[in-house]
Amino acid sequence: MKKGRLEAFSDGVIAIIITIMVLELKVPHSADLHALQPLLPTLFCYVLSFIYVGIYWNNHHHMIYMVDRIDGRVLWANLHLLFWLSLVPFVTAWTGENHFAQWPVIFYGIVLAMNGASYGLLARLLIKRSGKDSALADALGRDWKSWLSVLIYVAGIASAFYNPLISMGLYVIVAMIWFVPDTRVERKVLGKESC
Amino acid sequence: MKKGRLEAFSDGVIAIIITIMVLELKVPHSADLHALQPLLPTLFCYVLSFIYVGIYWNNHHHMIYMVDRIDGRVLWANLHLLFWLSLVPFVTAWTGENHFAQWPVIFYGIVLAMNGASYGLLARLLIKRSGKDSALADALGRDWKSWLSVLIYVAGIASAFYNPLISMGLYVIVAMIWFVPDTRVERKVLGKESC
Amino acid sequence: MKKGRLEAFSDGVIAIIITIMVLELKVPHSADLHALQPLLPTLFCYVLSFIYVGIYWNNHHHMIYMVDRIDGRVLWANLHLLFWLSLVPFVTAWTGENHFAQWPVIFYGIVLAMNGASYGLLARLLIKRSGKDSALADALGRDWKSWLSVLIYVAGIASAFYNPLISMGLYVIVAMIWFVPDTRVERKVLGKESC
Amino acid sequence: MKKGRLEAFSDGVIAIIITIMVLELKVPHSADLHALQPLLPTLFCYVLSFIYVGIYWNNHHHMIYMVDRIDGRVLWANLHLLFWLSLVPFVTAWTGENHFAQWPVIFYGIVLAMNGASYGLLARLLIKRSGKDSALADALGRDWKSWLSVLIYVAGIASAFYNPLISMGLYVIVAMIWFVPDTRVERKVLGKESC
Repeated sequence: MKKGRLEAFSDGVIAIIITIMVLELKVPHSADLHALQPLLPTLFCYVLSFIYVGIYWNNHHHMIYMVDRIDGRVLWANLHLLFWLSLVPFVTAWTGENHFAQWPVIFYGIVLAMNGASYGLLARLLIKRSGKDSALADALGRDWKSWLSVLIYVAGIASAFYNPLISMGLYVIVAMIWFVPDTRVERKVLGKESC
Repeated sequence: MKKGRLEAFSDGVIAIIITIMVLELKVPHSADLHALQPLLPTLFCYVLSFIYVGIYWNNHHHMIYMVDRIDGRVLWANLHLLFWLSLVPFVTAWTGENHFAQWPVIFYGIVLAMNGASYGLLARLLIKRSGKDSALADALGRDWKSWLSVLIYVAGIASAFYNPLISMGLYVIVAMIWFVPDTRVERKVLGKESC
Repeated sequence: MKKGRLEAFSDGVIAIIITIMVLELKVPHSADLHALQPLLPTLFCYVLSFIYVGIYWNNHHHMIYMVDRIDGRVLWANLHLLFWLSLVPFVTAWTGENHFAQWPVIFYGIVLAMNGASYGLLARLLIKRSGKDSALADALGRDWKSWLSVLIYVAGIASAFYNPLISMGLYVIVAMIWFVPDTRVERKVLGKESC
Repeated sequence: MKKGRLEAFSDGVIAIIITIMVLELKVPHSADLHALQPLLPTLFCYVLSFIYVGIYWNNHHHMIYMVDRIDGRVLWANLHLLFWLSLVPFVTAWTGENHFAQWPVIFYGIVLAMNGASYGLLARLLIKRSGKDSALADALGRDWKSWLSVLIYVAGIASAFYNPLISMGLYVIVAMIWFVPDTRVERKVLGKESC
């Protein structure tokens, strides 16, 4: 019951976040083909952020699926994650509109890193509630992807002072690492029942 | 369970897409009747895109209804479809604001075609999971509508170089072909139980 | 199952419609109290439209609750209703921004009337599917409210040529007539079980 | 069933409210770090309103969870709450854009107070339906938090005439009081079953 509303509310917020980003693809007043050219960096950022938000939705989906009990703390840890996700459209648009300029790219990285951190916080809280012997703790056990992501985010933010395009490349790499849904959980779940 | 969230998330994103399109009907500052006239092409495009998105929601609804198992690949194929659907408001507004000019109409056709392609991809993946003897494979078996649509989209995009109004007419024809919900699936489902 | 997604999708679209209307309350750049004054007509229209959309959600809720079977036609009749509902934010903003000028008020009335008509169409279709002896047919039987609304809408649209404020008053009266949720259905449902 | 749609619709509206607030963080055209500085008050207000809306969602979630029966009056009391919640993005943006000026801060307080009042109205109605001996009446029994909030809101609105920053501080204090989810309800629920 309660879990159902947490899922429904998260789905709603994430669906809105992923969709309002497209509003930043401002419709050009000219019907010329060249009118699309300045939109290309925004389109690139939109695609990247769409994939990032998709990854969070996907993994959120898998993680909550394995949880039985939630409480007030989990609700707030979830809202905390949704807060940082809600800043993604802002940094996406700022980065796209300024064609990968230094400060927007830095803040893009910071917001992505905060998303990762708040997701990690939620995961840790859920594991604590489920117990160390739970399927969730087992499934999320050796979380090397998260630590690697942190490292790459830091490298990305740092390299923006040298060349922001390197940062964007690093953010793409993190997305590629996570693109595959969390197969550890999926394997566990599939072991339990058809999903 | 998992299917439930896929449906809920897709419903959310599609509901937002179909609704934010109306935001492109920019409220005129004048209270004059003539102030509505430049909005007529945008209104026409809004109606057409509303019907298109409605068709996708309708058929998505029918298709997922017949599926029992989903996995990470299906989630991404679904997000891929949602991505192309999310570009519909952009091309709708661009086409409407420029009164069916050549390039907007071409991109309208490309986005519509990509929607069709990503829907087909999702359908193929679901059939592969369900097995070739499944009700879904049977129901979607002879998919002449999809192939006809591809042909008409290509014709529409090509004819925009000659006269974009012909393209718009062709896009209307594709919508008419699909307007009837996928009765093949409906008949199967009705044969199973009341829905 | 299918009914669930119809409800979920309708809830999503109506939730977005009712919420994006507030975006037309454009934030004034001045912090002065007088800066709110030109927003008062928009606020009035927002409240009225909020109540209208709330009424539709409420009655839609009651009506679908009594239905067991839906099909492709119902899905499209529902989308048709959602289409006219989606135009409410446009006419609300146009009327509010132009302080109840003639043409915006006329179109406000037309869109409200079309909402009523498309709701009636959906109701008739659902009754036809449920059978003439169904609880729904019984509950919606003597639909004097709908016919009275049509009369008042027509009077409202006509009187806008004389004085648009009379029209607004008439639209308020229709809202008052419907404000009470469809107690006919509620009584039936309550007779069946606690809801 | 009916309760499910009330929850789904409320979740949808609250999800949209909490997300569209971020649209008021207008993307700066400059890529300069200093371009973010004028956004800081808006960001502060966004965070505060995000927490407020999160609190309402959280407590709404807990309260509806304990309710078995809803009716037309509850639906309208709920829509009334959603109406005042829908004005939060407006006052948030107005306050942020004008850097905590007097009138925006006063209206921020009024809207927050009206949210509290309409939530209280909904709670009272639900208790009345559930009966005075219900778990809900018991759980919400000694509602000192609500009365304290009213006092602080009044103090906040009044002190805006002297110094609006004091008002903002008081609004932060109310948020802190409510930040902990309604543990009275949670304890009851946990006593009943795992949630």
